[in-house]
Amino acid sequence: MDAIALPEPREDIIARREEIVRKLKTLVAPDCVIDDETGRRAYETDALTAYKRLPLAVVLPSNTQEVSRVLAYCNENAIKVVARGAGTSLCGGALPQEDAIVLGVSKLNRVLHIDYQNRTARVEAGITNIAISNAVASAGFFYAPDPSSQIACTLAGNIAMNSGGAHCLKYGVTTNNVLGIKMVLMTGEVIEFGGEALDAPTYDLLALIVGSEGQFGIVTEATVRILPAAEAARPMLLGFETSKAAGACVAAIIGAGVIPVAIEFMDRPAIEVCDDFSKAGYPRDVEALLIVEVEGSESEIENLLTRIQQIASFFEPKVIRVSQSAEESAAIWKGRKAAFGAMGHISDYYCMDGVIPLRKLADVLVEISRICTEHSLPVANIFHAGDGNLHPLILYNANDAEEASRAEACGAEILKHCVKVGGCLTGEHGVGIEKRDLMGLQFTKIDLEQQMRIKSVFDPNWLLNPAKVFPLDGREMP
Amino acid sequence: MDAIALPEPREDIIARREEIVRKLKTLVAPDCVIDDETGRRAYETDALTAYKRLPLAVVLPSNTQEVSRVLAYCNENAIKVVARGAGTSLCGGALPQEDAIVLGVSKLNRVLHIDYQNRTARVEAGITNIAISNAVASAGFFYAPDPSSQIACTLAGNIAMNSGGAHCLKYGVTTNNVLGIKMVLMTGEVIEFGGEALDAPTYDLLALIVGSEGQFGIVTEATVRILPAAEAARPMLLGFETSKAAGACVAAIIGAGVIPVAIEFMDRPAIEVCDDFSKAGYPRDVEALLIVEVEGSESEIENLLTRIQQIASFFEPKVIRVSQSAEESAAIWKGRKAAFGAMGHISDYYCMDGVIPLRKLADVLVEISRICTEHSLPVANIFHAGDGNLHPLILYNANDAEEASRAEACGAEILKHCVKVGGCLTGEHGVGIEKRDLMGLQFTKIDLEQQMRIKSVFDPNWLLNPAKVFPLDGREMP
Repeated sequence: MDAIALPEPREDIIARREEIVRKLKTLVAPDCVIDDETGRRAYETDALTAYKRLPLAVVLPSNTQEVSRVLAYCNENAIKVVARGAGTSLCGGALPQEDAIVLGVSKLNRVLHIDYQNRTARVEAGITNIAISNAVASAGFFYAPDPSSQIACTLAGNIAMNSGGAHCLKYGVTTNNVLGIKMVLMTGEVIEFGGEALDAPTYDLLALIVGSEGQFGIVTEATVRILPAAEAARPMLLGFETSKAAGACVAAIIGAGVIPVAIEFMDRPAIEVCDDFSKAGYPRDVEALLIVEVEGSESEIENLLTRIQQIASFFEPKVIRVSQSAEESAAIWKGRKAAFGAMGHISDYYCMDGVIPLRKLADVLVEISRICTEHSLPVANIFHAGDGNLHPLILYNANDAEEASRAEACGAEILKHCVKVGGCLTGEHGVGIEKRDLMGLQFTKIDLEQQMRIKSVFDPNWLLNPAKVFPLDGREMP
Repeated sequence: MDAIALPEPREDIIARREEIVRKLKTLVAPDCVIDDETGRRAYETDALTAYKRLPLAVVLPSNTQEVSRVLAYCNENAIKVVARGAGTSLCGGALPQEDAIVLGVSKLNRVLHIDYQNRTARVEAGITNIAISNAVASAGFFYAPDPSSQIACTLAGNIAMNSGGAHCLKYGVTTNNVLGIKMVLMTGEVIEFGGEALDAPTYDLLALIVGSEGQFGIVTEATVRILPAAEAARPMLLGFETSKAAGACVAAIIGAGVIPVAIEFMDRPAIEVCDDFSKAGYPRDVEALLIVEVEGSESEIENLLTRIQQIASFFEPKVIRVSQSAEESAAIWKGRKAAFGAMGHISDYYCMDGVIPLRKLADVLVEISRICTEHSLPVANIFHAGDGNLHPLILYNANDAEEASRAEACGAEILKHCVKVGGCLTGEHGVGIEKRDLMGLQFTKIDLEQQMRIKSVFDPNWLLNPAKVFPLDGREMP
């Protein structure tokens, strides 16, 4: 792959590397600047490994003041800055460049304050997603957004990409669960958005920051909503003879106003790979499988499962299997949670992230299959069906350049179709480098120019996370 | 009142009034330009009636193209524009000026498309809030945000102020229920944000627009979420011996993870006035009353009400009364819904809109009482307790200038305290003219400058809804 152009790095900045590293070592503890090539190699890519660029240096500040000092210095010296959480971005969101430093937030990982009565937690932004839930688990609380990478990924990265996860159908994505943010601007100025209370006067800058892909500033702290865990939860499996029937069933469940915690979709290729890998005991004679999880008291669970079975019956499922024990529940989720790993075990894959209006789900699945057949590439579908967030995995051989570029074209075609039916390019993975040149499919020139003017307000010199999000052509930048 | 300064109107614009009116009549149908003084008087104020200014002219466009033509003309001619929905703003958000035209959206009131499977409705922005619910009621759906003014207020105004309502505790406020927007920029350019599907790539401009108080552009269409109505709902009354106990009970209910549809709070002065006016049958021997409504199936309702009574019992309520019939439920809500009207019947009042972290509720109620005693003014508290959104009504005599300015000082003191405990100046009413000069209490100079830079991106000449939101001192404008 690597078909997407990156601008030429600035040689004058690269020539000043030693001086810059020396200066950075005065702004943070010297051992928090990674200077040697081996060390920098660890930061040359993220989970979109097709793209690799060696950064100028890596800085790992320990507090907001250090972040402020580093950004002010870089701003004065026109040095680009790429913010990085855990580097789990699937769209190249943390890809560095040769004339850019990487600013990693991994040392900003403390829990600052937990307030159970107000149901909030104040944390540093480099904390891992799962560590927030762990910190409040003993009191029966959790942090809702749960990306598949939650063991590794940071809240900072979740905020940058407005990350979701299987359980976001009920609880919302990152933007619905973050109440306040402390952010350092490229000038070094520190701004606070939101707070512990609901809402804030005037513009909702908080929602603007969430999902801004590290282009506006570096988030160092956040106040997040924590929720009491439900009394109990129970998943069921529904197997269908066609993907179309499964898709229509999802739309019917949501349309009827039943909101399960999660509705996950897997098609036959995904079922086979996941079941082989994890021995989850999935039915093997169906074309599509839904995992529908509901939660609440025992009576609520019974009530919801009954209603879902009633709705599903219109679509003639071949299999209806309600978990009867904690072990069965764990097995059902084990297959789904291992999906991406299992798939990576058998093939390289290119993971799409389109979003569509739910009523189009059945038709879009048919179209995805047609597009992949046309490109002679196998596809497996594993995704958050309840909120219309598709993750087709296009299987290909990364060592075959022709096949790789075919996979990329195939993916672009799928995303184009998502936009065409009223959906959009990305649900939770972000634009990054991967979808940058597709932005014109979704937005008019007027739209993009307006977005770029806002980028310029936060970062007038366009130094933060360069080369991402906006097509290089038509950029309004110095 | 009217203590808040407005800039001098531009005499050169006022001198061109006739020419401007003539031109406007070529841009929209001539009978959609209100030119005569009597007609313009109807638009000189909104629900914050202490402030009045006669607008230059009033324009009522019939479609997006007309809005676009009017804005482009005004932009070229440096004519200020104040957008107006139904004029129900409690913070002077639609107050015009002598050198500004009012652009009313009341003719943009059509339902364009309803999609039950996707649970969305596309409407023109001038539609009233209640009309959206009415349009989908026969299919068992509704539009969730329900400001007290919902019979009159428009979706456009709800979007401008990010309006809430009693039932937003469960369903969220406007920003959580709007999926897409069509907006005309001051240049006349038309932009779309969001759409039918969840999320959109890159910046969440949709959330930035919601709550921007008519400062960024004129919203002409929106796609909103519609929700299936619950099977049933049931309110209960809880009466307490002190406001502090009632406040602590609210925090305990929310802290325990029980989310009723609504938790409304009334203190003794409010109970008496509302009960006298509406004959709701409220208990008269308590200091504070909570109306807690839950919804769902019968078993869910029973379950939730039992848990709420368990939690409430720690705070020793004097009265626990669960509605036993549709009539009793209606009576309970009748008193609350008539509250502001009932209060207006006996006195002028100044309605605050502070938001606080829920755990501070009990203490803040004590402090509000202290502040009002210090200012020798009676106060009644009627508000959305579940989300920490306070509405203290300060009672005063509007014909007594000294008392009026005392009420204003008292309100400022209350808002100052809300900010001090970690809350904010406004929950759902907006900043408008009323809280403009208090913004410095909540935001630093850096914060305000950053917000104003964003305002400048959308409206570089600062023509939209002038003199609102930002203190006049320190504005970055031409």
